[in-house]
Amino acid sequence: MPEPDVDSASPAAAEQAPALRQIDWSRLFSPRVVAVVGATDTEGSPQRAQWTQVRERLGALGADVVPVHPKKSDILGVRAYPSVAELPADPDVVVVLVRDPLPAVEEAVARGAGFVIVFSAGFSELGTAEGDAAEARLRELAAGSTRIIGPNTNLNIFEPWQQGLPGRKLAIITQSGYQGRPITQGQVLGIGIEMWATLGNETDIEWADVAGHLATRPGVGAIATYVEGFQDGRAFMLAADACVRAGIPVIAIKVGRSEEGRAMAAAHTGHLTGPDAVHDAVFDQYGVIRVDDIDEVIEISGLFCHAGLLPGAGGVAVYAMSGGTASHVADLCGLAGVPVPHFTPETVAALGEYIPWYLKRDNPVDSGGVITARPENRRVLEIMLDDPNVDVLFAPITGVFPGMSDALARDLIALHERAQAGQGKPVVAAWTSPIRDDDAYRALCAAGVPLFHSFGAAVRGLGELGRFSRLVREYRSPFALEAESSAPRASVEATARARALLATRSGALNEVDSKQLLAAYDIPVVTERLITSPDEAVATATELGFPVVLKIASADIAHKSDLGLVAVGVRDADDVRAAYARLTSTALTAAPDARIDGVVVAEMVTDAVAEVILGLSHQPPFGPTITFGLGGVFTEVFADVAFAVPPFDADRARAVIESTRGVRLLRGARGRPAGDIDALVETIMRLQALAVELGDQIAELDINPIMVRPAGRGAVAVDALVIPRG
Amino acid sequence: MPEPDVDSASPAAAEQAPALRQIDWSRLFSPRVVAVVGATDTEGSPQRAQWTQVRERLGALGADVVPVHPKKSDILGVRAYPSVAELPADPDVVVVLVRDPLPAVEEAVARGAGFVIVFSAGFSELGTAEGDAAEARLRELAAGSTRIIGPNTNLNIFEPWQQGLPGRKLAIITQSGYQGRPITQGQVLGIGIEMWATLGNETDIEWADVAGHLATRPGVGAIATYVEGFQDGRAFMLAADACVRAGIPVIAIKVGRSEEGRAMAAAHTGHLTGPDAVHDAVFDQYGVIRVDDIDEVIEISGLFCHAGLLPGAGGVAVYAMSGGTASHVADLCGLAGVPVPHFTPETVAALGEYIPWYLKRDNPVDSGGVITARPENRRVLEIMLDDPNVDVLFAPITGVFPGMSDALARDLIALHERAQAGQGKPVVAAWTSPIRDDDAYRALCAAGVPLFHSFGAAVRGLGELGRFSRLVREYRSPFALEAESSAPRASVEATARARALLATRSGALNEVDSKQLLAAYDIPVVTERLITSPDEAVATATELGFPVVLKIASADIAHKSDLGLVAVGVRDADDVRAAYARLTSTALTAAPDARIDGVVVAEMVTDAVAEVILGLSHQPPFGPTITFGLGGVFTEVFADVAFAVPPFDADRARAVIESTRGVRLLRGARGRPAGDIDALVETIMRLQALAVELGDQIAELDINPIMVRPAGRGAVAVDALVIPRG
Repeated sequence: MPEPDVDSASPAAAEQAPALRQIDWSRLFSPRVVAVVGATDTEGSPQRAQWTQVRERLGALGADVVPVHPKKSDILGVRAYPSVAELPADPDVVVVLVRDPLPAVEEAVARGAGFVIVFSAGFSELGTAEGDAAEARLRELAAGSTRIIGPNTNLNIFEPWQQGLPGRKLAIITQSGYQGRPITQGQVLGIGIEMWATLGNETDIEWADVAGHLATRPGVGAIATYVEGFQDGRAFMLAADACVRAGIPVIAIKVGRSEEGRAMAAAHTGHLTGPDAVHDAVFDQYGVIRVDDIDEVIEISGLFCHAGLLPGAGGVAVYAMSGGTASHVADLCGLAGVPVPHFTPETVAALGEYIPWYLKRDNPVDSGGVITARPENRRVLEIMLDDPNVDVLFAPITGVFPGMSDALARDLIALHERAQAGQGKPVVAAWTSPIRDDDAYRALCAAGVPLFHSFGAAVRGLGELGRFSRLVREYRSPFALEAESSAPRASVEATARARALLATRSGALNEVDSKQLLAAYDIPVVTERLITSPDEAVATATELGFPVVLKIASADIAHKSDLGLVAVGVRDADDVRAAYARLTSTALTAAPDARIDGVVVAEMVTDAVAEVILGLSHQPPFGPTITFGLGGVFTEVFADVAFAVPPFDADRARAVIESTRGVRLLRGARGRPAGDIDALVETIMRLQALAVELGDQIAELDINPIMVRPAGRGAVAVDALVIPRG
Repeated sequence: MPEPDVDSASPAAAEQAPALRQIDWSRLFSPRVVAVVGATDTEGSPQRAQWTQVRERLGALGADVVPVHPKKSDILGVRAYPSVAELPADPDVVVVLVRDPLPAVEEAVARGAGFVIVFSAGFSELGTAEGDAAEARLRELAAGSTRIIGPNTNLNIFEPWQQGLPGRKLAIITQSGYQGRPITQGQVLGIGIEMWATLGNETDIEWADVAGHLATRPGVGAIATYVEGFQDGRAFMLAADACVRAGIPVIAIKVGRSEEGRAMAAAHTGHLTGPDAVHDAVFDQYGVIRVDDIDEVIEISGLFCHAGLLPGAGGVAVYAMSGGTASHVADLCGLAGVPVPHFTPETVAALGEYIPWYLKRDNPVDSGGVITARPENRRVLEIMLDDPNVDVLFAPITGVFPGMSDALARDLIALHERAQAGQGKPVVAAWTSPIRDDDAYRALCAAGVPLFHSFGAAVRGLGELGRFSRLVREYRSPFALEAESSAPRASVEATARARALLATRSGALNEVDSKQLLAAYDIPVVTERLITSPDEAVATATELGFPVVLKIASADIAHKSDLGLVAVGVRDADDVRAAYARLTSTALTAAPDARIDGVVVAEMVTDAVAEVILGLSHQPPFGPTITFGLGGVFTEVFADVAFAVPPFDADRARAVIESTRGVRLLRGARGRPAGDIDALVETIMRLQALAVELGDQIAELDINPIMVRPAGRGAVAVDALVIPRG
């Protein structure tokens, strides 16, 4: 076999690393010809209202909007055509309002339409064979250059929004029409809307297409989204990656945290929500801000649109009018890990000119309200903002208190406008009172001062602002790294050997084969031999050095220790013979139906600091996913596991380890030595290489346990199980 | 010594079980004579405004309100007196506005005033010797029949509130004036206010006094509170107990969850916040609903005031106008454990007359908005409410959508009014849109329909409503049980023996003495002997039966295992001699300064399912507190511990065990047998008896570990350490 050249792996890697697909959005947003199938003039019908809406909105963009009606030649004064096929010009956009949309979509595709918007429901969300077949046909029709939006969608993407609102704009992507409506109503809080895309079932145009496009639009401050499930995990990650690189945060409600939500989402838009903890891991990697609720989406989005990103560590200066409020906010910041840094002595001294001695001049400031209504209060806020440890000022306005809350609002608006002009740091306010028909409140909204309805919501937002700002500054795209091939990769021979092993075994690989597969990717495994006689066992043990471990080799038995099929600490030749006899006879009774390959004699790791578990499994919609956790009660009782979805770099692998509670054991507890975390990071990177190259052939892989030895001495896989994909 | 009669323990128990103190509140709320010290007519001074306020508010109640001024004979037309001592009549209430209030308080006490309200700060919150001394003097002055409110307070308790609002009323207790203001502004949501007490430093009148009083007031629907710390933990528990018995929930913000909050609270009102997890345990026992934020306080309080308690399991019927909203709400309910039960087939069939086939007729209902604006929509809501599995209806109003949101609001108001008239089940709404100047929103508020600003807040509230309703139905006061003496209690001789042991030992008790103390309260301990020679060790081991455990006995050494000072599984006489020699020599090198009492030879528990830890410590403000957790990584890495503050019953002890994650090991995991949880409950109850009787003499007690054996075979303390109170 000739030596392949070193680049031979690259085409395969490139195949697996598609960029986001290119879409000509101008045909949707600046169309010349638009057809509306199902337009009608029947009084009171939704289709009449929709026709009128499309005509007005797209007509205003300069489009020629024509109705398609099987019988009428005229709809409300506009000449109608009997079918899309018979239109005088090829349409850029075809809006399909009829109950059975497939014929019209077929004609639109034949005419080379840029986009088809399919309103009607009745597809995969029904969970019926007919619905699935209709959706499959729609997917076929999307194979060419025509893009399909929907089905199960509406006209939100053409909705006009209030102009002249301050700051950068918010783009909205939802899979449900109604769930986006209150987000657009954030306009009353001064948040300008860039676009609202309602995608329905996402048969063709999916979340990633729209988000990837938004990452290229100037003036977008944030993307707010309501999602039931993503169609393509890798496309989602590529789009999220593009958003981070553009400095645009995604603030997401993602259904699927409970069984009840998963079931309802499937019935609604046919989306499978996917395993929730894996979504959290991906969101964390790409800085997607997952929130519970619509108010959080609106307010955190508004914060990003109106405050922009922070340059420093995200230090928050808190200005309270009451010691109670200062205590409460300090408590919430401490709990959320939001930094409220001490001021410099110079700042404290400067504040001392305005704030009486019995109140608090350090951060959080308790002004006691005594100066809040006075002109010099603005100077106090400026001094706080000027502190070098401070990146943003937070003013909790606890209750409406005429004379105080309106005076403070005026000061905040002035400082906000200074910041918007590029001459100062941003300010953030909380308006806790349920009274909203208040002039100060309306003025804060109109000016676009970032506003929250509670202290906790503001603290959450400030924490996300600091974290996302840091991510953007420090971000290295894993897709860029992937293209550079800096990740560990097996030699071509090793890959071929591993593929052969997977192809030639039927069913699960036994533990010896499983570890050979790992070894092909340079994952350290214990030295061991599969033997079939007591004499061989003694010879092998002598060669490896005592003590050794003996265990039954069988791909059919999962929990060997629990069944008494493992002998540890076997000390000498006599012990080996006794253990061999005991294990083989126990196997006959404990697992009479299992296929026994023999007995494994393995070196025994005697200096492990901790036992960890690594796994590889397919997690929709993301594909091959790596799982990490400590063994024993950590995974069994606490579900203390963490996930990583390729591609990722070594820093991410380390972050995954660090995100578990059990990492404390690896760091050394109660005088025990620290474990070799570096070796574990390297092992995870090698498992990633295996996942990328063999993921399509492996259903599941479990390394349980990996013995982590003291720092500098490595980590070694002791047992493993590989199940090829059926 | 004569046998004491069985009731001899009761007086002691009664001493420890004071009821809430009796206070004659009528002198505060219906005063005849009120004096205001520091009243003035100086234009623009706060004291002039305060004088005017007191005069108006208490004058309106029929009180004779008189100013006290050292020089003026007349304040704004009212005759003034130079001092409280010279008032013509004994005052019921004295309001002290002056900077140095102590002289006036002294005079008020001398005149037998019912209440003194002290405005000024400058007491313990300063953290200075002068401040502490002033507060101590104030405390002395409160020893008699005059009650003191404050210092560091204001006149909120006399504030008049909007009348005629629907439903039961909300009472508010805060330790900060400003933090209560937005709660009172809940009036715009239709929540009527009963009273707002701002207590400041709580030198005399404390939270428990006011809450205990509120539990006796008719028409109170909930108590909302902002608390930095409680003065007296037992008084707090008695008041919380009274509230549960009255069916009144306490919705609390309690600062102290982070170090930052604790530090700021101490500087604000001088309150020590106390250990946070112990507060959570007490809150859980008495159904106190702890929330993070002011919006939650307002909305959950409003829910209780306007919906009342639920009779059943708290089943929620969800009516959504959109599948997205239904998915989102279902997800949040699933996550929070809020029951969204399936409807009966009859309900589903009845809904089928109104809701089209392609939408969802079971719970959560997705009406798709198609019938929301129609008259028959009210019938749909009624059918849902009439389902036998349903106790309350929740209607998330996602966004303002004219024609839909106002129609739904009208239906909800009609159903709410029916429920208020006692003719139906309650309804709850969420209004997610930031648009609040909307007629439908205002109508919902005016009618008192329980209203939340987000789905998550509503789901949280519905969960608390179900839980608190169940608690009230099933509640048994632990104070009543305590009085019945149903808890385990040691014999008088045993108590005397235990007290003697504590009195005669200086410093920590060694493990043998510690276990004797436990044994006096019938807590099972391993059989063991303290010996001082190898021969004794062999004899003892032979008597106890092999295998045995040997360990060094020393109160000075905490982690004996880590130091190699414990030998387990000692199998025969030779082993005993070898272990004895090894332990004694290791002790000399490993702990050269420790006082060694000898070697303990103990029976070895060989069938333990799990090792648990029980502790007793003093946790301000609650006093002796019991800690439970599983050993090893459960406590070390996961801090998986739970607390119980006496008095509590066996159900509570069991709930404490069940609240830990580690309980899964006790229930039997991976084919292991279940542990004897009943025995553990009994052990906790016996430790409670010890805590109640000896708590004042013990600084700390640790039982680590208790070996929990398989069900029916008990739990036995293997090691213990008792530290008497210095």
